[in-house]
Amino acid sequence: MMKHFDKATILEAESFFRRDLINCLSGYKSLNLIGTKSKWGQTNLSPFSQVFHIGATPPMAGILFRPHTVERHTLENILETEVFTLNHVTAEFFREAHQTAARYEGSEFQAVGLEEDYLEDFPAPFVKLSPVKVACRLVEHQTLQVNRTVLVIGEIEHIWVDEKGLRADGSLDLNVLGTVTVSGLDEYHIGQKLARLSYPKPGKDLQEI
Amino acid sequence: MMKHFDKATILEAESFFRRDLINCLSGYKSLNLIGTKSKWGQTNLSPFSQVFHIGATPPMAGILFRPHTVERHTLENILETEVFTLNHVTAEFFREAHQTAARYEGSEFQAVGLEEDYLEDFPAPFVKLSPVKVACRLVEHQTLQVNRTVLVIGEIEHIWVDEKGLRADGSLDLNVLGTVTVSGLDEYHIGQKLARLSYPKPGKDLQEI
Repeated sequence: MMKHFDKATILEAESFFRRDLINCLSGYKSLNLIGTKSKWGQTNLSPFSQVFHIGATPPMAGILFRPHTVERHTLENILETEVFTLNHVTAEFFREAHQTAARYEGSEFQAVGLEEDYLEDFPAPFVKLSPVKVACRLVEHQTLQVNRTVLVIGEIEHIWVDEKGLRADGSLDLNVLGTVTVSGLDEYHIGQKLARLSYPKPGKDLQEI
Repeated sequence: MMKHFDKATILEAESFFRRDLINCLSGYKSLNLIGTKSKWGQTNLSPFSQVFHIGATPPMAGILFRPHTVERHTLENILETEVFTLNHVTAEFFREAHQTAARYEGSEFQAVGLEEDYLEDFPAPFVKLSPVKVACRLVEHQTLQVNRTVLVIGEIEHIWVDEKGLRADGSLDLNVLGTVTVSGLDEYHIGQKLARLSYPKPGKDLQEI
């Protein structure tokens, strides 16, 4: 049986119900810890489920920031220092990753017990345990008129990947890397592969590759 | 062992390698079939991995469209008719979902054998088999200067969810719904829950909820 919500029902629902439902609608989301440093040298670490692909040539990633949330330190640091890191989360430390969203005064790295890592003179901190670490430099940011959500785009300057999860064609085996995905605001999952499929063409059967 | 790529190495790599690597970097991505209809009445269905949460009050979803890709019919239809549907994909029909990305002349629904569904007078087509169907109306779109990626934002007018996956608090159990997630361009997975965690506060232990 399908349950139906129209716009009036959604807006009349309890705010926690609406928030949980709407946050779950897109499906499984990527999970990255974003590492930054303030201009005073204070490190910051926060979980984000809205990191996405902008382009490969040149390589770029985007982040959507909600207005007025706990993630504001991350946004302020990126706008001030113009650098940030993306770090995949694994089953080994997804609880610590979740806990970094608490409102700490000091560094979330120390508060939750995740070790900082510094690589190739890049000024923003990486997460030592992360099997995929990406160094990004700010290239553009804009505020969406519709609700003041902020879109940040960064150019990718470095990538580190655990070799066990890097295939010869450049794709990553996220099952082998142990990368975690998030649904809604607070639910964590690992992935279980169904298949990798060939390039789709009309009249041609799909192959598993 | 970690493999390192700097920007020069990335740009010098074969284009297929760079495309696969950069598309995998964000981690697991949401997967939705977007249903539209042209102003001439031709239905269209295409898979998207870049649908995300914009806000809950009012409820809104966003889509990022790559420039010059096979997905252009979807974008043209949305700009012309101002309506579209989001439809979760399950293990039952992820192959057909992948196949909708082929360059068909006619409707992808007929070409791949997915049945259209029309609900509550909403003019755009839904996917009959989908356990989560969302009706959206265009509110804003803009082109990112950095590489002409197009951001489309829609207001959510209706939601249909299979009741087996709807929890009392409004969140969706994506494992029960059988929702599929995608990595890179062509690899499909289901999720396997690790835990749902309590709201994080400094000095307070996390609970499973």
